[in-house]
Amino acid sequence: MKELNNLIDHVVQRVSANLHAPGTDISRYVADQIPLDSHALYYAFYALTHQHPLSFNFKHSSLAGTYFLGKTEVELSIVYKCDIRGDELKPKGTVVEIDGSKLRLFQDERISIRHSFLMKTLVHNNSHDAENVEIFKILNTVALHYANIHGTSVEGCLIEPFATVDFSTCHNCKVGAYAYVQADDLRGEVVEPGSVRIEKTGQFKLQYQYDRDVLEKYIRLDENCRPSGVFMEFCESRKTDFEPVYNAAQPEIPVDFPDTSFVGHYSLIRGDCAIGHNVMVCQRAYVENSRLGDGSNAQENCYIINSTFEGMNVTAHGGKVINTDLGRRTFTGFNSFIHGTEEARVAIGKHCVIMPHTIIDAEEPISVPNGSLVWGLIRTQADVATNTILLEDLKGLNRLDQGGLRAEGDLAAFVEGFVHRIEHILEENGAFFDASDPDTAGHAQKTQDLGYNTVQSYMGGDLKGLCPTIRIEPLIP
Amino acid sequence: MKELNNLIDHVVQRVSANLHAPGTDISRYVADQIPLDSHALYYAFYALTHQHPLSFNFKHSSLAGTYFLGKTEVELSIVYKCDIRGDELKPKGTVVEIDGSKLRLFQDERISIRHSFLMKTLVHNNSHDAENVEIFKILNTVALHYANIHGTSVEGCLIEPFATVDFSTCHNCKVGAYAYVQADDLRGEVVEPGSVRIEKTGQFKLQYQYDRDVLEKYIRLDENCRPSGVFMEFCESRKTDFEPVYNAAQPEIPVDFPDTSFVGHYSLIRGDCAIGHNVMVCQRAYVENSRLGDGSNAQENCYIINSTFEGMNVTAHGGKVINTDLGRRTFTGFNSFIHGTEEARVAIGKHCVIMPHTIIDAEEPISVPNGSLVWGLIRTQADVATNTILLEDLKGLNRLDQGGLRAEGDLAAFVEGFVHRIEHILEENGAFFDASDPDTAGHAQKTQDLGYNTVQSYMGGDLKGLCPTIRIEPLIP
Repeated sequence: MKELNNLIDHVVQRVSANLHAPGTDISRYVADQIPLDSHALYYAFYALTHQHPLSFNFKHSSLAGTYFLGKTEVELSIVYKCDIRGDELKPKGTVVEIDGSKLRLFQDERISIRHSFLMKTLVHNNSHDAENVEIFKILNTVALHYANIHGTSVEGCLIEPFATVDFSTCHNCKVGAYAYVQADDLRGEVVEPGSVRIEKTGQFKLQYQYDRDVLEKYIRLDENCRPSGVFMEFCESRKTDFEPVYNAAQPEIPVDFPDTSFVGHYSLIRGDCAIGHNVMVCQRAYVENSRLGDGSNAQENCYIINSTFEGMNVTAHGGKVINTDLGRRTFTGFNSFIHGTEEARVAIGKHCVIMPHTIIDAEEPISVPNGSLVWGLIRTQADVATNTILLEDLKGLNRLDQGGLRAEGDLAAFVEGFVHRIEHILEENGAFFDASDPDTAGHAQKTQDLGYNTVQSYMGGDLKGLCPTIRIEPLIP
Repeated sequence: MKELNNLIDHVVQRVSANLHAPGTDISRYVADQIPLDSHALYYAFYALTHQHPLSFNFKHSSLAGTYFLGKTEVELSIVYKCDIRGDELKPKGTVVEIDGSKLRLFQDERISIRHSFLMKTLVHNNSHDAENVEIFKILNTVALHYANIHGTSVEGCLIEPFATVDFSTCHNCKVGAYAYVQADDLRGEVVEPGSVRIEKTGQFKLQYQYDRDVLEKYIRLDENCRPSGVFMEFCESRKTDFEPVYNAAQPEIPVDFPDTSFVGHYSLIRGDCAIGHNVMVCQRAYVENSRLGDGSNAQENCYIINSTFEGMNVTAHGGKVINTDLGRRTFTGFNSFIHGTEEARVAIGKHCVIMPHTIIDAEEPISVPNGSLVWGLIRTQADVATNTILLEDLKGLNRLDQGGLRAEGDLAAFVEGFVHRIEHILEENGAFFDASDPDTAGHAQKTQDLGYNTVQSYMGGDLKGLCPTIRIEPLIP
């Protein structure tokens, strides 16, 4: 274990030096978060398909329990039970347009994780960093429980539990627990816990801030930087359910589904579930007694329990949907918590956008009208009046101050951009797949023929918990 | 599958060209032996420990279901459900003495498998090829079901089912089914099926030839080069028992055993078993309702059923011991078949040597005296008189023609060499381990902290059934 401890110390030093945040003791976030023996206990999985460019380079790292798909390099890092998904990495030759300039990729894009500590973090690419079009970079960064790093380069950052950095290039930032930020370039910022912010420079800005007592209930860090609250309890109490799945070499999938759909072997499907056409269920998604209509998807770390999805429903990474009925084309954002009960079900109409990091924790039955934007904390039907607005109405405004949400600027551009992004997500996932046109295939179809290779660390000696150097390249006949 | 078929054709051409045996159609031995889909079904395993030099290089090969331990390279080969065990590869700096000349290894020795087709073959090193001290070479070779390649370079060879090449450098040889050969250098020879031969040039020679009707019963190749008979039925009927073991990421071991012993996760332990101290049970060993006394070992592809081992019992690769009681220090050679029944148990005394490729197929209770050498086919107690001799008696002879065995030369040297080899095997396996002296540790102790990494092939497309290029090197802190 000697070398694993050395590596942890090294990463703490690197992140501390780069965060430039005096008074933030990185070691408290990292030390003893993972029982040292666990690094040797869990396999890392890398997925092979014949449809994705392949390249894995692992060096001097601990990869326990992590899932990799797509070109990835990991060096001098601890990556623990993370999902690293590179199925939207841009291939060589792709032309990227940024502010009118055109860039042609000289190499296939790859995910690069160096000098970092990621724990239960989700990394998905679809990147936009103009400075690093060939490299999706995670450098000198600590990202903790159920955080999402999405489309985002992060350098010298600390990302607390359940936070999401989305489409924002972040340098030397501290992002608080359950904060969501989507804001071009961020440099040296401290994003407060529970702050939700979507900003496009010169166009629009939306902001919402969770109250301190709400954070105290749902997600808080104690004096030792350990997370607790409803979100942690919810996720951690279902952790052992995944054990039999992760103990199998290639687990069986206990549900029938059409061959246009994909259900990951390392997802968990329980009880009475129905899977429609063109559906994508990612690894580490949890689906119980639910119906996923045609074109829906259930992304990593999402939980869908006792719920129905009419169809074309996106559940973004970490979204939780319990005792809820979603109308067609309704979108659930990152780490949202839509929590109905048997007595107090939640019904969301069609074409709704549930903003990232929204909490609906129903104390009574709740119904949200078709075409709504939904944000913040909703507990009763009365809250729906303050915390939703019709997307069509929002498009006509250039300022809104309602239910804690402050929005200004070209809000039609915001709405159209968001709706366009949902369409893009559906398309990328293969929701519109038509067998007569191969170009309509997306992740659900391209990931079909998936093989899993596994990596385990050294099990004894000074190197215990660290993996050997591994390089996997495509076979070129 | 296109590229897999190309590779199979390539290997057939290479072996055919190098075997120099007109009339031998290699493609008949290879074609359709393995259902093509199976290449994509099964994982390959490579074992990591912190005690063995590590290096794996896999290129343009199919590795389905194979187990690797120690430095290995595989290129342009089909290696299917084999055990490739390199725990006796010599480290850099080892001095090898051959006929008085001393050679110092310039690099760590490695196993190299190129342009070859191995199917359920066991490869174990402890090599002796003076021309290739750094490379344990398997080149342009076809080796089939339950064949053993042991301590042996093979080039341009065809090795039929249940054959063993042991300590013999073989060039351009055809070794028939159930033949055993241990004979320094072999060039261009055809070794007849069922021929057992141990020869040390200028010192001694022992030979035994199974009758055609015995081979017909136990192991024969039909007109399509497919093996059948008692041996195949015995092994193949227990094949599915291993499935749950190989479907688990790290299977549990359903028996308690002392921490000086090793029981491989990919062995099969069933029923009521007892494992003593300093015992080694290798992957793909099958142990059922049996007792393995202190210092015993159960090597790859061995079956030990309803039997007791007093202690210090070696069961070499592929040995089968059923309804049998073995006295202390009794050795069972490669692919021997010691088959008692409930009504007709077999009792072998202590300090016996059951020659490689011996068949005891009891029609009545059989008892073999202490200190016997045992060979050929034994069915009744009367056969014991013809097919055994006391080792002490043999040492006094320079010629023997008894029970089909013809031996001549310095037979004391043969006996002493064999006994010495058994001591060496026990020592290598850690049978004499004493916790107060770390130098006494052997495989059973050094393999304790074993991690398993797995490799799966591409699951679709032209490359289906072939593995990506994989390189694993030690982490050097």
